[in-house]
Amino acid sequence: MSVFAIETQSSDTRARTGSLATAHGIVKTPVFMPVGTLGTVKALSPEEISACGAQIILGNTYHLYLRPGCDVIDIFAGLHGFMNWNAPILTDSGGFQIFSLAKMAKITTDGYAFQSHIDGSRHLISPEDAVDIQLRLNSDILMCLDQCISYPAEEKEAQGAHELTLDWASRCQKQIQARNPGQNLLFGIVQGGMYPHLRRLSARGLAELDFPGYAVGGLSVGEPVALMHEMARSTLPLLPENKPRYVMGVGRPEDLVEMTGFGVDMFDCVMPTRNARNGQLFTAFGKINISNAKFRTDTGPIEPGCTCYTCQNFSRAYLQHLYRTREILAYRLNTIHNIHYYTALMGQMRSAIEKDRFLTFRDDFYRKRHP
Amino acid sequence: MSVFAIETQSSDTRARTGSLATAHGIVKTPVFMPVGTLGTVKALSPEEISACGAQIILGNTYHLYLRPGCDVIDIFAGLHGFMNWNAPILTDSGGFQIFSLAKMAKITTDGYAFQSHIDGSRHLISPEDAVDIQLRLNSDILMCLDQCISYPAEEKEAQGAHELTLDWASRCQKQIQARNPGQNLLFGIVQGGMYPHLRRLSARGLAELDFPGYAVGGLSVGEPVALMHEMARSTLPLLPENKPRYVMGVGRPEDLVEMTGFGVDMFDCVMPTRNARNGQLFTAFGKINISNAKFRTDTGPIEPGCTCYTCQNFSRAYLQHLYRTREILAYRLNTIHNIHYYTALMGQMRSAIEKDRFLTFRDDFYRKRHP
Ligand SMILES: [Zn+2]
Ligand SMILES: [Zn+2]
Repeated sequence: MSVFAIETQSSDTRARTGSLATAHGIVKTPVFMPVGTLGTVKALSPEEISACGAQIILGNTYHLYLRPGCDVIDIFAGLHGFMNWNAPILTDSGGFQIFSLAKMAKITTDGYAFQSHIDGSRHLISPEDAVDIQLRLNSDILMCLDQCISYPAEEKEAQGAHELTLDWASRCQKQIQARNPGQNLLFGIVQGGMYPHLRRLSARGLAELDFPGYAVGGLSVGEPVALMHEMARSTLPLLPENKPRYVMGVGRPEDLVEMTGFGVDMFDCVMPTRNARNGQLFTAFGKINISNAKFRTDTGPIEPGCTCYTCQNFSRAYLQHLYRTREILAYRLNTIHNIHYYTALMGQMRSAIEKDRFLTFRDDFYRKRHP
Repeated sequence: MSVFAIETQSSDTRARTGSLATAHGIVKTPVFMPVGTLGTVKALSPEEISACGAQIILGNTYHLYLRPGCDVIDIFAGLHGFMNWNAPILTDSGGFQIFSLAKMAKITTDGYAFQSHIDGSRHLISPEDAVDIQLRLNSDILMCLDQCISYPAEEKEAQGAHELTLDWASRCQKQIQARNPGQNLLFGIVQGGMYPHLRRLSARGLAELDFPGYAVGGLSVGEPVALMHEMARSTLPLLPENKPRYVMGVGRPEDLVEMTGFGVDMFDCVMPTRNARNGQLFTAFGKINISNAKFRTDTGPIEPGCTCYTCQNFSRAYLQHLYRTREILAYRLNTIHNIHYYTALMGQMRSAIEKDRFLTFRDDFYRKRHP
């Protein structure tokens, strides 16, 4: 029995709606997953995350493995109990953070050796370890350990990374089967740099392993937007149609709209949360910077008509004051609005797909931004 | 008609309960007022402030006058609308912050000249200005501009400060009467350093002016605790029995218990909020530091039996993790518990006074802390 069911298929794009069953509930797709790096979506309580419309959040295995450490999370039988979040959680494998944050990271066919960016302590993480750690977090969706590469990368490097990632995917799958975990779902990750034929080999190899879901990794790593879209557009059809498809670390609202049209079901990105903490707020008419002088005496909400807690209760003038004085409440109120914006955007797309009006929605989306 | 009504008088101490009517509702006394320096009780939403049991908050006139400035707050017809807090607000006069924070502060018989600690801009604030600014904030309770002095201070300096403060109190009163403000209440402030005979002169002079409430200022400025308590104890009986009495900037839970016994009705202090942000949490058994290694795997709440949101939902282990990783949520959850602790302590005292069991409560309070 499949955990993923496609509910509507757009007739003139590859966009579709679906539902993904996890141990902590159903996720309606396409979906955006706010990033909760350290067991908290920065500045929000669990109730606020839900009230913002988020159905599922992402945790970072590398960070949680280092702090608080699996021994602490074990006591709570996983991340849900630890952070008091009772809805689904997806965790990454840790590979991307080891690659981008850890010190002295070395990769071998057996995994990563690295030193903690916090205290310099030494660690080894094999594909099997990555699965075990994520099972200890009791993630609803686990990701296979993969090898991330920089952009640009030589074809030879991209090929090596794809081959290692595919080998590790097989090892991760064996590990989770050996652990007999019940409802925890393991997703494979397509690599291959910006080389379509490598992406094709990667997707084909993963599809043969028959994962309950697939991710496209290695995008949004510095390549031009057009190339990122092209890589996603060409890779997606190579993945099994009836499985959830997740593009990792993407992106801007425009990216979500484009990629939903390519048939992507799941997204995550730090943009709404990080930008909120930098005073950048998303609206249907584009981004605004709350510290802009013109908002100093503005009694209106961030976005007229927005139903988020922040817009229902506070003015741009107050938010500017909080932001300029670096008050803690600023980060929370800004984050609430931005997450709400992202989840509302996904909700509007789901609704448009259900009515088979996705292209109309897409046109409206751009018209509001560029009137 | 008086805005303050004493409801119960303890038979064996001077403790009493009462209710203070303001334009934004009734305040049950004795009461603790959390400090909301810049139009936000740091890290909390207005709903959380209320949920913590706070009835009234304190705003800092000096800070709000500089940022966002009265012109912004005017647009919202006061601080309540600006910050979306619909319960009572007391503001200080700004004198203490000018004295302790501003640059190049100079005092004359006409008020303070100073430069902003933010941008160096020059300002002059007379007693009349202090009233006008607080009326623009639409504070429910305004404080007279006073002259603060350091500890220790020579008698001559303390005498000068008391005399100037008394003169300014008269000017502030004339100003608020001229403005005909309706329900905004202006409180006088007793000064006089650590000199009981000056405090007596100050209290007597203020009492003759017949304010709707009185504050004892100039305490908790570095003097020994015993001296602070003695000054409060001896000054309180000199103030009109039937008016609310407020000791400014005090203090520790022990200080609140002692001074409630002296007949103090109102308190404010940054301690619960500031300590929360430093990981120090109040409990009936004394303070704990959440970063203490022994809490790393502690699944219990900060304080067993505490009904605050934090204790109802999160463990010491999670709070330690958030605090150690400097997550924004740490400051909020810690602040919620500490404010709740302070307001619950005041509620327990009101209840004990109503049952004429205040001394029993006081004994229990100390027994728990020093078993
Ligand atoms: Zn909003
Ligand atoms: Zn508590």
